[in-house]
Amino acid sequence: MGPSNKTIKEGISACTGDTADHIHKYTEIYRASVPLPEDAPRVQGYDFNQGVDHRALLQSYLNTGFQATNFGLAVQQINSMIERRQQPLTAENGSVEDDPSNCPCLRSCTIFLGYTSNLISSGVRETIRYLAEHKMVDVLVTTAGGIEEDLIKCLGPVYVGDFSLPGKDLFNKGIDRIGNLLMPDENYNTFYNWIKPILNQMLLEQNTQGAHWTPSKMIHRLGKEINNPESVCYWAYKNNIPVFSPALTDGALGDVLFFFSADNPGLIVDITQDITRMNTQAVAANSTGMIILGGGVAKHHICNANAMRLGADFAVYVNTAYEADGSDSGARPDEAVTWGKIKVDAQPVKVFAEATLVFPLLVAETFALHAEKKTTNETKE
Amino acid sequence: MGPSNKTIKEGISACTGDTADHIHKYTEIYRASVPLPEDAPRVQGYDFNQGVDHRALLQSYLNTGFQATNFGLAVQQINSMIERRQQPLTAENGSVEDDPSNCPCLRSCTIFLGYTSNLISSGVRETIRYLAEHKMVDVLVTTAGGIEEDLIKCLGPVYVGDFSLPGKDLFNKGIDRIGNLLMPDENYNTFYNWIKPILNQMLLEQNTQGAHWTPSKMIHRLGKEINNPESVCYWAYKNNIPVFSPALTDGALGDVLFFFSADNPGLIVDITQDITRMNTQAVAANSTGMIILGGGVAKHHICNANAMRLGADFAVYVNTAYEADGSDSGARPDEAVTWGKIKVDAQPVKVFAEATLVFPLLVAETFALHAEKKTTNETKE
Amino acid sequence: MGPSNKTIKEGISACTGDTADHIHKYTEIYRASVPLPEDAPRVQGYDFNQGVDHRALLQSYLNTGFQATNFGLAVQQINSMIERRQQPLTAENGSVEDDPSNCPCLRSCTIFLGYTSNLISSGVRETIRYLAEHKMVDVLVTTAGGIEEDLIKCLGPVYVGDFSLPGKDLFNKGIDRIGNLLMPDENYNTFYNWIKPILNQMLLEQNTQGAHWTPSKMIHRLGKEINNPESVCYWAYKNNIPVFSPALTDGALGDVLFFFSADNPGLIVDITQDITRMNTQAVAANSTGMIILGGGVAKHHICNANAMRLGADFAVYVNTAYEADGSDSGARPDEAVTWGKIKVDAQPVKVFAEATLVFPLLVAETFALHAEKKTTNETKE
Amino acid sequence: MGPSNKTIKEGISACTGDTADHIHKYTEIYRASVPLPEDAPRVQGYDFNQGVDHRALLQSYLNTGFQATNFGLAVQQINSMIERRQQPLTAENGSVEDDPSNCPCLRSCTIFLGYTSNLISSGVRETIRYLAEHKMVDVLVTTAGGIEEDLIKCLGPVYVGDFSLPGKDLFNKGIDRIGNLLMPDENYNTFYNWIKPILNQMLLEQNTQGAHWTPSKMIHRLGKEINNPESVCYWAYKNNIPVFSPALTDGALGDVLFFFSADNPGLIVDITQDITRMNTQAVAANSTGMIILGGGVAKHHICNANAMRLGADFAVYVNTAYEADGSDSGARPDEAVTWGKIKVDAQPVKVFAEATLVFPLLVAETFALHAEKKTTNETKE
Repeated sequence: MGPSNKTIKEGISACTGDTADHIHKYTEIYRASVPLPEDAPRVQGYDFNQGVDHRALLQSYLNTGFQATNFGLAVQQINSMIERRQQPLTAENGSVEDDPSNCPCLRSCTIFLGYTSNLISSGVRETIRYLAEHKMVDVLVTTAGGIEEDLIKCLGPVYVGDFSLPGKDLFNKGIDRIGNLLMPDENYNTFYNWIKPILNQMLLEQNTQGAHWTPSKMIHRLGKEINNPESVCYWAYKNNIPVFSPALTDGALGDVLFFFSADNPGLIVDITQDITRMNTQAVAANSTGMIILGGGVAKHHICNANAMRLGADFAVYVNTAYEADGSDSGARPDEAVTWGKIKVDAQPVKVFAEATLVFPLLVAETFALHAEKKTTNETKE
Repeated sequence: MGPSNKTIKEGISACTGDTADHIHKYTEIYRASVPLPEDAPRVQGYDFNQGVDHRALLQSYLNTGFQATNFGLAVQQINSMIERRQQPLTAENGSVEDDPSNCPCLRSCTIFLGYTSNLISSGVRETIRYLAEHKMVDVLVTTAGGIEEDLIKCLGPVYVGDFSLPGKDLFNKGIDRIGNLLMPDENYNTFYNWIKPILNQMLLEQNTQGAHWTPSKMIHRLGKEINNPESVCYWAYKNNIPVFSPALTDGALGDVLFFFSADNPGLIVDITQDITRMNTQAVAANSTGMIILGGGVAKHHICNANAMRLGADFAVYVNTAYEADGSDSGARPDEAVTWGKIKVDAQPVKVFAEATLVFPLLVAETFALHAEKKTTNETKE
Repeated sequence: MGPSNKTIKEGISACTGDTADHIHKYTEIYRASVPLPEDAPRVQGYDFNQGVDHRALLQSYLNTGFQATNFGLAVQQINSMIERRQQPLTAENGSVEDDPSNCPCLRSCTIFLGYTSNLISSGVRETIRYLAEHKMVDVLVTTAGGIEEDLIKCLGPVYVGDFSLPGKDLFNKGIDRIGNLLMPDENYNTFYNWIKPILNQMLLEQNTQGAHWTPSKMIHRLGKEINNPESVCYWAYKNNIPVFSPALTDGALGDVLFFFSADNPGLIVDITQDITRMNTQAVAANSTGMIILGGGVAKHHICNANAMRLGADFAVYVNTAYEADGSDSGARPDEAVTWGKIKVDAQPVKVFAEATLVFPLLVAETFALHAEKKTTNETKE
Repeated sequence: MGPSNKTIKEGISACTGDTADHIHKYTEIYRASVPLPEDAPRVQGYDFNQGVDHRALLQSYLNTGFQATNFGLAVQQINSMIERRQQPLTAENGSVEDDPSNCPCLRSCTIFLGYTSNLISSGVRETIRYLAEHKMVDVLVTTAGGIEEDLIKCLGPVYVGDFSLPGKDLFNKGIDRIGNLLMPDENYNTFYNWIKPILNQMLLEQNTQGAHWTPSKMIHRLGKEINNPESVCYWAYKNNIPVFSPALTDGALGDVLFFFSADNPGLIVDITQDITRMNTQAVAANSTGMIILGGGVAKHHICNANAMRLGADFAVYVNTAYEADGSDSGARPDEAVTWGKIKVDAQPVKVFAEATLVFPLLVAETFALHAEKKTTNETKE
């Protein structure tokens, strides 16, 4: 007889202290457990008595629990993308002829990397640059700031500051704050002076050569013009990696287009052609993986394109948003499954974490590790 | 033929622009939908063209989506607690004799209300006081601050400030900050002077009359001594509502016990007897409801006691924590189900929200509404 | 002598129990406080003993603390926008000639309202529709979903579901999940069939009449075509309220442009002209207020435009993001001050809350309250 | 003349497209910047072209921005604690005689480590065990679960599961979920059988030898009895590190005391004596450092004790709570400064992160690194 069926008399006796009848039943409270499978992983953290072996430490994360486990799963998920991407296209997939284009149909797996603007302001930019430099990812998606901050950093420095510096003081000093980073406002002036002749040339090409500008084409051009190996856009240009940013006017790039167009009207930046190009990257791919840092357009745009192919095969989200507000930014991968953005049989992973803490470490255990192994193997041969 | 099965040739044609073959298949992307039930609720927000009717507005929340819907569900859940609590104990439950004690076995539903310290610092205290004053809830659980701030507010004011006031300035002024609230530090001195003779008396009663102090007994005594109708503790004392706070020393009450014990050692505050009393409130109850604002001990202690009866029948959480860090504070109600803290067939609700925004409104649509109806009915009769 | 200067001997005696020397000094711990100003607001919550008066309850929020206080400040801030907006343009501002256009220079205050897509999926759409219907706001900014969900809801229903419904089941049923809302996937097919002839006509106008499409012009046209008073876009069209959405292709609108363009290539949607139009709304305004629900493009785009005028005069953010990840979404208003997006002497407010819980109530205490007063006054006259 | 002072005529011309007058003034928008100091740190991320050097990668975090920077600052802050702690007590501090007790007055710095229960359920337990084993920290504070989970893990396994496993299924299988961890419920039965004779013995010692039990004394005894080098409590016992847990009954330890007391009433667990002991750890210390993982009692109890000495000298918080809800859990270190919990001239750090991701890495770069250096130096000698 369980507590919920007791008579009032029993209840009273419980209340008045003669509780023995009830609380002897601890075996009702402590239930027998159905055994878990033999190979169910046990929680076990890293043992520092074996010294500091960072790689072993990060491998122990998988069985550490909570977001450490999700980090471990994300490492596996990204490594699966890389391994799939390295597989040759087999006969079953059709015969492959080598192709100078960077065509998704010629890769076993197309990896989409999305990131919000702030990550380019931060030192994660160097990690993304590394991935673009070595053609480790195939499609980039970001917001306007994710482009312009990359370019501006080639023109002037950004500093580490503090989240709590008073706004009024900074404004009066001409210093803009990005979280705990500091951007001298005059960098934007430098940027305008740099980009103005390029916009002039783009307008000329439009008017005289029928150039049809889209955000991705404009970014490609800017990557060429910046001509600086510190830049993500530069390497995307060099390696023919398309960079999509449909809201390219929502930032300093919009500001300069606004100022420029006042004197030189008519430059058109078309987003329709880019959506065809973006979706084709997903539709034509043999398989796809999504690595998405942060939310907003960077996340939704990649997921939406993958819905056009009935789902990505692999997915890793890294962000600090949660589903409670119903936004796409905070949506769990399982919500993407309902939309056909991720395949129902995929093993997507969300790491609930701020990306600067996690993404360099993820790359260390995946892309950079593969590069090391490759180098080691080549050296041996 | 879906996009994932396409031949490479098709893929290339997609990449090179001849995409017609693929993207004509939009009907594969836009799928047919299994119809939802006829009575599935449609999303519909409040229509302000009908004027501002706050009650109707809040009723519209149920079909508004996201946390508004959860607010609507929480209103239903709390009203279910209240309705169950008002039901007479039937013959099936055994015969009821009237009892002067506030015994859980004599109520159809025992409502546990948990809240973190900061809510007592805030104006939510007045809402909780109302619930205690009118015996609308049966068991209170809070942390040390949830007790002492209630008492201190009878002795000195707390002010509204700002989250960003600099710490150093406030420290130098002897002002303590609680979020955007300001507490003059000297209030704690006033508090110490008020409580010292009471502690003296408690020690005397322990040493001469065998008084056995527990946190709940001490809170009961302090509620009596404060003798102020603005106080939650006062009404809990008056109405014989037990208030549990196992970590009662973790705050100013601990400070005063520390200072007091230096000169007057030996006052014992026993937490063992209180756990029996707390758990008995759950075990002896005919049914239980949990309303828990915030996390930490206030949340876990109520849930844990309800596990001793194999689960609460009703549950509402209001907090801003999320499950990603594996803490009990952020755990969804469904995690509590695994522990037997909430019954498997209950309809628990978590409103992801900061409690000052939500709890007064929840009370307006539940406890206070029932009180209004009751008053109206009594007036009619 | 403070605790930090004690001799080791004293420390030892403290440790070994003879602590009297130290802990007598509670007056060093409990410091004297500099008095707060006479008129410093005291924390005081609503007293339900006076019955449920929702308006009085919401007014009590200002002195309730935490986010309730921020709600109260947001009510004040929005009411300041409304009052400024209702002021006639004075001689000092120059002479005003009446103008049939909806020109920002003819309003004392231009109110920008930004919102993320999910809020249009939710019942907050009805609140936004009310504001557009009655021309209470002047510029709208949202993401692609914020447009298409508004249109789709005129074509098919959206339902209330649950955050935890399994993704695989929903996918197999052709039901898409948006937080705890459910969208039948076939609604998108209906949408495509509805929009296809419109896109055809737009392409025709481009090719034959030199129509130059931008996101805001396209939204204007779609608002006209939907011709449904439940739609935000319809009322924005009717009342000539510009709606900006630079990433208009990032959603179902992008999907339909993708499918449509395969057969009917060439439709251009230019974002350059829109950035000029958007920024001019801010630059030409006599004063501006920003009300921003959620983050991402909806937030940044409004703030960025206001930087072009050296800052908004009023600002209210409602979102659940925090500054720790350095994103613009979570940035406090004080970060916007550094960028010149908000004036240094403004009193911006961030309410940390999920918008469905808060925004209808904010409107009830601001826009709708003013409308009620106006109606009452007109009735009297 | 700035945009805000423009005449209406100018405004109209702006609106109607003749915007040249206004928007030429981009130099008003792009402001001159006051130069930052020469040595202001520039944002610069890790360069993976130099290979994967984890230590160098983690050192690059300091200049990476956002929470990576806070991680870097936390490494510095903890290393400052360790270095201070290793300093000999100088003549100025008084003469030191060696003392077998673990007395805070004999250490240059007392390090408090707080952690929530879930971290002991996770693999972070192994990291905490390492710190206790090697006497690297001096005082531990946790909740009931932080004790019992440590003991239970010596008696039965805990598994890695998933956040989304359905509650009903797990309940029916007798499996409890802790985030994405799985605890067989029968482990609690094993625990009860293990602890019952110990409680019997404790009651006997109370009744026959005048034993006065407090949470910290009980934990000390349980650490002795478990006698297992995998246990944190065991090493705390061995190394005479006090473990405070005022709400020790709020968990399985409370359950077993509840069941046990029904048959064997009278065991007293006093929290008053422990608050004196806890506060003395802070008051008698020469300097203090706080490392606090998570919120609730674990955080507040350490901070409160440090207020008794007018502030900790060093502080590191690692948690995912934010200040918006006014809770102590989410309070920034600057709020603690107002209370005198942290000294005004300290350099406290909050890392906004889930602790399993961050704490093992923090230990790798601080405590474990110092241990490695020490070992290397000793080997050389």
